[in-house]
Amino acid sequence: MNRARKTAISPTRDEDYTEWYQQVIRAADLAETSAVRGCMVIKPWGYSLWENIQRVLDGMFKATGHQNAYFPLFIPLSFMQKEAEHVEGFAKECAVVTHHRLEAGPDGRLVPSGELTEPLVVRPTSETIIGATFAKWVQSYRDLPLLINQWANVVRWEMRPRIFLRTAEFLWQEGHTVHATAEDAQQETARMLGVYADFAERYMAIPVIKGEKTLSERFPGAVSTYSIEAMMQDRKALQAGTSHFLGQNFARSSEIRFSDPSGQDAYAWTTSWGVSTRLIGGLIMTHSDDNGLILPPKLAPRHVVILPLLRKNTNRAAILAYCESLAQELRALRYKGNPPDSLSEDETRIPFDDDQPLQVELDVRDASGGEKVWSWIKKGVPIRLEIGQRELEGNTVFVGRRDRQQSERVSQSRAEFVATVSAQLDDIQHGLFDRARRFCDQHTQRIDSKADLYDFFTPKNRDKPEIHAGFALSHWNGQPDVEETIKNDLNVTIRCIPLDAPEEEGSCVLSGQASKRRVVFAKSY
Amino acid sequence: MNRARKTAISPTRDEDYTEWYQQVIRAADLAETSAVRGCMVIKPWGYSLWENIQRVLDGMFKATGHQNAYFPLFIPLSFMQKEAEHVEGFAKECAVVTHHRLEAGPDGRLVPSGELTEPLVVRPTSETIIGATFAKWVQSYRDLPLLINQWANVVRWEMRPRIFLRTAEFLWQEGHTVHATAEDAQQETARMLGVYADFAERYMAIPVIKGEKTLSERFPGAVSTYSIEAMMQDRKALQAGTSHFLGQNFARSSEIRFSDPSGQDAYAWTTSWGVSTRLIGGLIMTHSDDNGLILPPKLAPRHVVILPLLRKNTNRAAILAYCESLAQELRALRYKGNPPDSLSEDETRIPFDDDQPLQVELDVRDASGGEKVWSWIKKGVPIRLEIGQRELEGNTVFVGRRDRQQSERVSQSRAEFVATVSAQLDDIQHGLFDRARRFCDQHTQRIDSKADLYDFFTPKNRDKPEIHAGFALSHWNGQPDVEETIKNDLNVTIRCIPLDAPEEEGSCVLSGQASKRRVVFAKSY
Repeated sequence: MNRARKTAISPTRDEDYTEWYQQVIRAADLAETSAVRGCMVIKPWGYSLWENIQRVLDGMFKATGHQNAYFPLFIPLSFMQKEAEHVEGFAKECAVVTHHRLEAGPDGRLVPSGELTEPLVVRPTSETIIGATFAKWVQSYRDLPLLINQWANVVRWEMRPRIFLRTAEFLWQEGHTVHATAEDAQQETARMLGVYADFAERYMAIPVIKGEKTLSERFPGAVSTYSIEAMMQDRKALQAGTSHFLGQNFARSSEIRFSDPSGQDAYAWTTSWGVSTRLIGGLIMTHSDDNGLILPPKLAPRHVVILPLLRKNTNRAAILAYCESLAQELRALRYKGNPPDSLSEDETRIPFDDDQPLQVELDVRDASGGEKVWSWIKKGVPIRLEIGQRELEGNTVFVGRRDRQQSERVSQSRAEFVATVSAQLDDIQHGLFDRARRFCDQHTQRIDSKADLYDFFTPKNRDKPEIHAGFALSHWNGQPDVEETIKNDLNVTIRCIPLDAPEEEGSCVLSGQASKRRVVFAKSY
Repeated sequence: MNRARKTAISPTRDEDYTEWYQQVIRAADLAETSAVRGCMVIKPWGYSLWENIQRVLDGMFKATGHQNAYFPLFIPLSFMQKEAEHVEGFAKECAVVTHHRLEAGPDGRLVPSGELTEPLVVRPTSETIIGATFAKWVQSYRDLPLLINQWANVVRWEMRPRIFLRTAEFLWQEGHTVHATAEDAQQETARMLGVYADFAERYMAIPVIKGEKTLSERFPGAVSTYSIEAMMQDRKALQAGTSHFLGQNFARSSEIRFSDPSGQDAYAWTTSWGVSTRLIGGLIMTHSDDNGLILPPKLAPRHVVILPLLRKNTNRAAILAYCESLAQELRALRYKGNPPDSLSEDETRIPFDDDQPLQVELDVRDASGGEKVWSWIKKGVPIRLEIGQRELEGNTVFVGRRDRQQSERVSQSRAEFVATVSAQLDDIQHGLFDRARRFCDQHTQRIDSKADLYDFFTPKNRDKPEIHAGFALSHWNGQPDVEETIKNDLNVTIRCIPLDAPEEEGSCVLSGQASKRRVVFAKSY
């Protein structure tokens, strides 16, 4: 930490939110830009966070009957063209392979050679290539439902890349399922949206709004798109996961047909759904503070870090031995965690609970105590234990929690800490969730007139141009022209039509026409 | 099974080995070719096998101090060109991205557009792009060793693709490490070769020969390449994993430099090592028989399948309930497994033991008992339990083991089976390994003259043109011209110079010149 300042991250959120985000990523050693335009390098600390996200989501997908498989990276151009809306939606961001070797050019430098008869698109998403395979797998109603997931990299050429949030290449999972009826496919779409919401809230500690997208924000080729939307600390919305009901659109373009029990031939109904490394961006922007990353314990690569303080005139060997035995004792524990009270009664929750050994790091690097403490604060580890001569003598631990100030550390007996570590982690997990939910509630307003809406989204504080107003819950007549006007005037869009919004008589905030339900307006990533 | 035949797979290994391999993959539902030339679709059963391979190897990598990270899919052409031998080695098989969008051409059809100023190669391997990043990460000797692994897809354009063995796109892991001294890097190269050998033998039940590659088979840009080589059932060699000591070649081309403790600046020493989905091809060709796949229990996606036999006049509900409770009882067990006696004293083994819940499938599909039994035989599940009225009444299970004939099934009391299932799985695991080792031993010969060598590799049996002789252990003078002659004459290469070959005076099998050590000659994949 720069001791002349009060925070480890410079600039702070208030000073320059965009730059603060980049600096948190740098200080926590999560990722960095690469030499390839728009492609990021995910560093070990960031990747281990992604591994934890993968482990939990994969468990949830399997608990809901899905199996993993793997499909080609490349999509023949003709496949992309089978679904007109689909290809139109992705045409501007496709990386295209046109050659399959290199050979020496006239000046001796290598140039692409061996031109392909048909160009190959690097998958931006896999509906078309997976659809071609599913057409072979699905013959009869007995083959349905077909519930497949793929963990993969995808490429969408980005003009304004931003690490984790918008990168040319990103890692994700994409679920692709086939059903005999529209109802089954719609249920699947809703089920997976529910899995994403449950994962966001119980594991990432990010409160989300589940809702349907308007036509203009729909996935290219989908009949309907649903998303989970979260409020970041700059009060912009982040679309954190999407689930699409594809109707029979892709079944028709890929010829996914089946014979029903009566022997009739019919097109199937499909869905797709995905979350990506963008989730890490959402996690950073929901919880981090001006001292760096704050990790929800259920996804933290390390739950506890032990920091031996080996000052002069201390019994170094004895302190190290104490730390070693403490680490061993803690590593024998498991951390499962309980959902926050506010969520515990949700009966739609997926019956999957991740349970893993407590992850404990013993930091014996040759560096000053202060330097080490601050490196772990910036990395977001939930609990730090500083262990010096006093702890050794008193059989205690000096506990620092990442959700509290460094000045609020407390001494606990070793036995008490070991007995309560799981509960303390839960307390941090629930505290992060509750804080994020309060933040979202505080910055969400019901707005009923155009004047108020325009005022709400007009920047008030010139010193904080990047901190926005939040979410406006307003009535909308369902017409695209209203969306377009608001987008043009305010750079604000309808993030979603919330699924749990109560039916309510009202009038459209812009047109004054009748409306049955409020939607979420916000600036967004 | 075709009841007119005696085997479930047609053709048999003896009849047509290549086609048998394809048919085993099809019958076990492991993978299939895709619409994209040379790219495969890995189906759920094949992918779950890959997930198990990943889980164990990942555990071994972490137990040896490595961390995972993720680097870009694309490599700028100029990066590939930095290491001359490297780019020469891969130039003929590079997929090249030249455009970043699609737009409507004159006839309205989409064509590539937005030409890149520098073409991007889809990674065939990542030394150059990772090297560029490592140059930033490594500054001082304190940053070393840097031990990184990546799980990723890579693309090497293949003219003669063969599923799992040679595909244009495949999945793999690639380790990349940086060290302060040549000795450290050489030790790492050897350590990871050891991890691969240990994994192959203890988990895949595939005996392997660890050895060094000759110059002609070296990784492009490496100082030395080591591999594990296994004998398939057609007695050809499969290179199943490689570990490269890269010297300072890539450190120089990527400028990976560090200051040593005395403040002197020096180039670092690097290694790389990888295994891929090719391992699945090796597993299939080592263990499978004319009835389909045989899975080593330690990697099997399911250890036990329970098959209720619901014939007429049986108590269906009671049989199902019996099967359900049996499945529950078995799922509460864990399967860890012990190494075969023949391997248990290897002190170089990595201290990692995978331990997982017993994986049990209850097959309640609406199909005949025979159909279901044979589908699991073809899928290679180690233990099948057929449960009918007799088992229900006797509180027994009717046990079929995949390493024995279907006619050799035995009845066991339920309690005895539950108590011994782990030992039975170990027995299968060790039996597969021992059988494969005997097979390799039987078809390995010490050959000391050119005439004998040429005779050994000359096909004898016109009816089995695809079944070869095996491995010849012969002396070699270390000269490339000898290798070339033998390759041209026999299509046989030196697979490796075994690390554990005893030093022994001899004379080169072709040139008669002095030689200190035998090498392995074989036909190969």
